[in-house]
Amino acid sequence: MMEDDLESYLGKQTVKDLKRQAIEAKRNAYVPYSHFPVGACIYTNSGLFYSGCNVENASYGLSICAERTAVVKAVSEGNTCFRAIALSTDTVGEVWPCGACRQFLSEFGNFPVIFIGLDGTIKVEMVYHLLPRNFSKSDLKTVVKDNKD
Amino acid sequence: MMEDDLESYLGKQTVKDLKRQAIEAKRNAYVPYSHFPVGACIYTNSGLFYSGCNVENASYGLSICAERTAVVKAVSEGNTCFRAIALSTDTVGEVWPCGACRQFLSEFGNFPVIFIGLDGTIKVEMVYHLLPRNFSKSDLKTVVKDNKD
Amino acid sequence: MMEDDLESYLGKQTVKDLKRQAIEAKRNAYVPYSHFPVGACIYTNSGLFYSGCNVENASYGLSICAERTAVVKAVSEGNTCFRAIALSTDTVGEVWPCGACRQFLSEFGNFPVIFIGLDGTIKVEMVYHLLPRNFSKSDLKTVVKDNKD
Amino acid sequence: MMEDDLESYLGKQTVKDLKRQAIEAKRNAYVPYSHFPVGACIYTNSGLFYSGCNVENASYGLSICAERTAVVKAVSEGNTCFRAIALSTDTVGEVWPCGACRQFLSEFGNFPVIFIGLDGTIKVEMVYHLLPRNFSKSDLKTVVKDNKD
Ligand SMILES: [Zn+2]
Ligand SMILES: [Zn+2]
Ligand SMILES: [Zn+2]
Ligand SMILES: [Zn+2]
Repeated sequence: MMEDDLESYLGKQTVKDLKRQAIEAKRNAYVPYSHFPVGACIYTNSGLFYSGCNVENASYGLSICAERTAVVKAVSEGNTCFRAIALSTDTVGEVWPCGACRQFLSEFGNFPVIFIGLDGTIKVEMVYHLLPRNFSKSDLKTVVKDNKD
Repeated sequence: MMEDDLESYLGKQTVKDLKRQAIEAKRNAYVPYSHFPVGACIYTNSGLFYSGCNVENASYGLSICAERTAVVKAVSEGNTCFRAIALSTDTVGEVWPCGACRQFLSEFGNFPVIFIGLDGTIKVEMVYHLLPRNFSKSDLKTVVKDNKD
Repeated sequence: MMEDDLESYLGKQTVKDLKRQAIEAKRNAYVPYSHFPVGACIYTNSGLFYSGCNVENASYGLSICAERTAVVKAVSEGNTCFRAIALSTDTVGEVWPCGACRQFLSEFGNFPVIFIGLDGTIKVEMVYHLLPRNFSKSDLKTVVKDNKD
Repeated sequence: MMEDDLESYLGKQTVKDLKRQAIEAKRNAYVPYSHFPVGACIYTNSGLFYSGCNVENASYGLSICAERTAVVKAVSEGNTCFRAIALSTDTVGEVWPCGACRQFLSEFGNFPVIFIGLDGTIKVEMVYHLLPRNFSKSDLKTVVKDNKD
């Protein structure tokens, strides 16, 4: 998806708002271990914005990425249908989400992920393109009971 | 800590608000796998409330508990100093947080955790009591470099 | 990659051994919550096999998948270079790994992931195909320091 | 529990073996991000030893600690009953496990956790002392269905 298509899909102002809020959310990143701040902003079907940042932990394995923070904020306010998510990192090139976040996003459907460059340029990929054939609730149901013992 | 002490510490109205918001947050729990909804509400030093619920995933290992949702919401809005967190579960007895959440809470200090019973009664324990000698940033710094490689 | 190519790459006996061990590992799956047993077997550059299963937890978010179990077993025995990993599930169709596992595998390179059907048929995809442009150590290094605070 | 009690409980040779294997396992730690190697060795009811180390990931949140590596190794080989686990860190003082590991250990019962100092001294605490009133399978079952939706 190109930037033009994204603007047709979301509206020019929404794209602008998503970019600004993802960049601003990065400021609150709690990253004393990685020093790699990330900001995210997710846009719901009902027209709401929820921004998030990464929150790390001394036990590295408990760190939560910006994408997941944005999602749980939205879900905890009753929103589980999303139109897009924007990501901002302090990197020269675009950085794609980690596999854990791709999995977490895919639980709630297939929507555009917007990468915001430091120079303001954007690129867009669909969740399903980031995680082809994601592991899903329907997979859990395909288990053959008789086989299990 | 007894309920009376908690009210002296937070104020009667704040305790009431924490209880109500933790219970309400439970409604948004996304728990298609465990069917175990949890609500949480964290109260910041600056007098703000952030409520959260658990958000599960088809890949169970990516599930995020209510306590962590509440914390990342607060942190992503610039709040990292907390006075208390309240938890609500649909269980007869009180349920203490999982170890992952205790670890996540302990990153941000030692404050009261309030358990709200279905009948409205409350119990209170300090984070440090839930996770004595938590693994912390200072532990990471005690590594003896010469020993390493 | 087709089954024939895989046999050329690994040798017929190795493919056979990987299949058998992945299927057998599934028996030890500790899955009291999902009832979705998975077995895995990873094959190292040095010709060793490490098999794993999923190990779940009452706090769902701490569950560890079979793929990750196999990898940490290998790494803890000094092996970090892999030639292939095989997966076995009790499902009619093939099930692709969750995003967390794809990320975990990608830390150690790009190698074939073998899906074993209940009927013994196999399909093969490369790690990089499962997680295009994975988040990696090199991404962490691209952060622009001056931009940070 | 004192060192003497531990030797009565496990036998002098077993304590010695646990110490040695936990220390040796540390060498395989994959810690390019934290530079904090940890080794662990778990001893099963059937008299087997499984050692593990921490295995980190570019996405910090996917890192797996040494304790969990040791447990999943044992479980994947059919062992879920444990008599003790020993931990070795490159730190001056003893370091207690993170909350995630305490939760993971508690899934499999209440047994001694042995901390090995750099100088060879040991301290011992029970899992239940590290994580009082752990979140458990029985908690999941106490949910009041009528209350849910
Ligand atoms: Zn992520
Ligand atoms: Zn929890
Ligand atoms: Zn997985
Ligand atoms: Zn740990």
